[in-house]
Amino acid sequence: MSELLPYLDSVAKDIDFMIDRYFVNKVGELNKASAHLLAAGGKRLRPAVVMLAADTVKRGSSHDIMPAALALELTHTFTLIHDDIMDDDTLRRGVQTVHTKWDMPTGILAGDVLYARAFEFICMSTASDNAKVRAISMLASTCADICLGQHMDMSFSRRNDVDEYEYLEMVKKKTGVLYAAAAGIGAVLAGGSAPQAKALYLFGLNTGIAFQIQDDLIDLLVTSEKSGKDRASDLREGKQTLILIKAREKGIDLLQYKRDLTEAEIEKVINELTDAGVMAEVKKVAQDLVAESNKHLSLLPPSKERSLLMEIGEFFVTRSY
Amino acid sequence: MSELLPYLDSVAKDIDFMIDRYFVNKVGELNKASAHLLAAGGKRLRPAVVMLAADTVKRGSSHDIMPAALALELTHTFTLIHDDIMDDDTLRRGVQTVHTKWDMPTGILAGDVLYARAFEFICMSTASDNAKVRAISMLASTCADICLGQHMDMSFSRRNDVDEYEYLEMVKKKTGVLYAAAAGIGAVLAGGSAPQAKALYLFGLNTGIAFQIQDDLIDLLVTSEKSGKDRASDLREGKQTLILIKAREKGIDLLQYKRDLTEAEIEKVINELTDAGVMAEVKKVAQDLVAESNKHLSLLPPSKERSLLMEIGEFFVTRSY
Repeated sequence: MSELLPYLDSVAKDIDFMIDRYFVNKVGELNKASAHLLAAGGKRLRPAVVMLAADTVKRGSSHDIMPAALALELTHTFTLIHDDIMDDDTLRRGVQTVHTKWDMPTGILAGDVLYARAFEFICMSTASDNAKVRAISMLASTCADICLGQHMDMSFSRRNDVDEYEYLEMVKKKTGVLYAAAAGIGAVLAGGSAPQAKALYLFGLNTGIAFQIQDDLIDLLVTSEKSGKDRASDLREGKQTLILIKAREKGIDLLQYKRDLTEAEIEKVINELTDAGVMAEVKKVAQDLVAESNKHLSLLPPSKERSLLMEIGEFFVTRSY
Repeated sequence: MSELLPYLDSVAKDIDFMIDRYFVNKVGELNKASAHLLAAGGKRLRPAVVMLAADTVKRGSSHDIMPAALALELTHTFTLIHDDIMDDDTLRRGVQTVHTKWDMPTGILAGDVLYARAFEFICMSTASDNAKVRAISMLASTCADICLGQHMDMSFSRRNDVDEYEYLEMVKKKTGVLYAAAAGIGAVLAGGSAPQAKALYLFGLNTGIAFQIQDDLIDLLVTSEKSGKDRASDLREGKQTLILIKAREKGIDLLQYKRDLTEAEIEKVINELTDAGVMAEVKKVAQDLVAESNKHLSLLPPSKERSLLMEIGEFFVTRSY
């Protein structure tokens, strides 16, 4: 990963620069609310995927499609703002969530503003009009899928019989398709062929699903201080995660922990799950998805950027933040 | 208006047909929630403006851009669904609002789904890619403006010193820009020149503002039974409408009626406002806007479609539903 982390840092700097220029210090409460979570940091992983996909298809093209890289971050952030309202979460990226700092109506609107801006920024890329139209179509159908995924996720919380297949279908929609769109949009805007765009789309889809599984692991394993989120919120809300599903298969009912937990109690749960082999099985599902995603990448000619994409996949399932 | 109403009926039929085909009877609760308000009727005025603008620029082009006409209706409906959550309204178009029939999270997501579909349908029009990109840009910046307008509108409810200028600025963003975009997008997709698109945009902007002023009048004047909405909700919520602003100038404080009112009490308020000249002044502002919008239209060559657009402006400020 020696090359990946400096690369991610440089992308984050570029994206932060654009966020600063276009979103921060604008007049009006709604503009401040729209900028709040956007400016609170974040790893800018989706923009990095957009840019690497573009450079994999056509080296040097990532500069032209930087606005589209920002567009993917805007899309991600709008979904977070709306999700936080639905889940009534109070903390995100180490800051108060938008509807907590302002109110629910302002949260809805702040998300809606970023939603619009995402489409505006795709249009601002330097690419053929035909590529832009295809990228916009892809982003739009992705947004609709994300909503279906979030709705599935919420409906799961009223059930305790969600199986692995349903879980993976939900995660594909809620998280996978946005990484797929990031890679696909980068490829399309850079002038990639249909098979190239498809290979990159499927790379993004598989790593995106792996990313979410890792996110569920982080929710349980990493302290609030380090992650910037409420720890073990999935346990507290009784969320049907792959951890809970695999635990149920082993006879461990994680729903008994559907309440506020102390750090010591959380550690005890982790030990129980580790001893039963749940943690290892969950990690294996994520790693298999990354292996699958690399198969799609291998259809593209080798390059520094392709290697970085493979490293991103690896990073997704080993990160602790 | 002998020609307008049959024309509007035929547009509504076309739009209803597309809604039926693409949105109604899809599986899944979220798809049902997204279709609910869309399928509950509505006058389909924005689609009519899209199609008339297209035909004014190039006769016969409206058929090619029908998906864009639907896109404007989807955009309008998504803003209604989100507004109803923010205002906690229970009734719209004679049916329960989405978040009332389902719940708040489903309401947010149902709106977000239609938001995405609007951009997808613009892409599905038959037009040059360049025109599509410009139309998408226009729709996106319009959506951001609508959010700002809705936020201004909500912030007004905590004040009692909003003046006519601020009110018109809010209405321009909340309602005007979507009619402007309807006319502008129709013109752009039909291959109109920049001056043609600008003239139609400004026609839409002015009539759109007039439309909202009439909507405020209808809220007060028309029974729930006829309008399908809660009557006098603006009074009950103490909304800073042009009626309230002009009444304040005449020494009538409408905030005293910020509570549930009987039909008899509402009639008494209307009489007081009529006697003080408030109703006439508010109507004149709307009529002047329509006259202004016709000046912009007069830059285009005369045609049956241009006449219908002028009739729509007139209809906007005379309708009672």
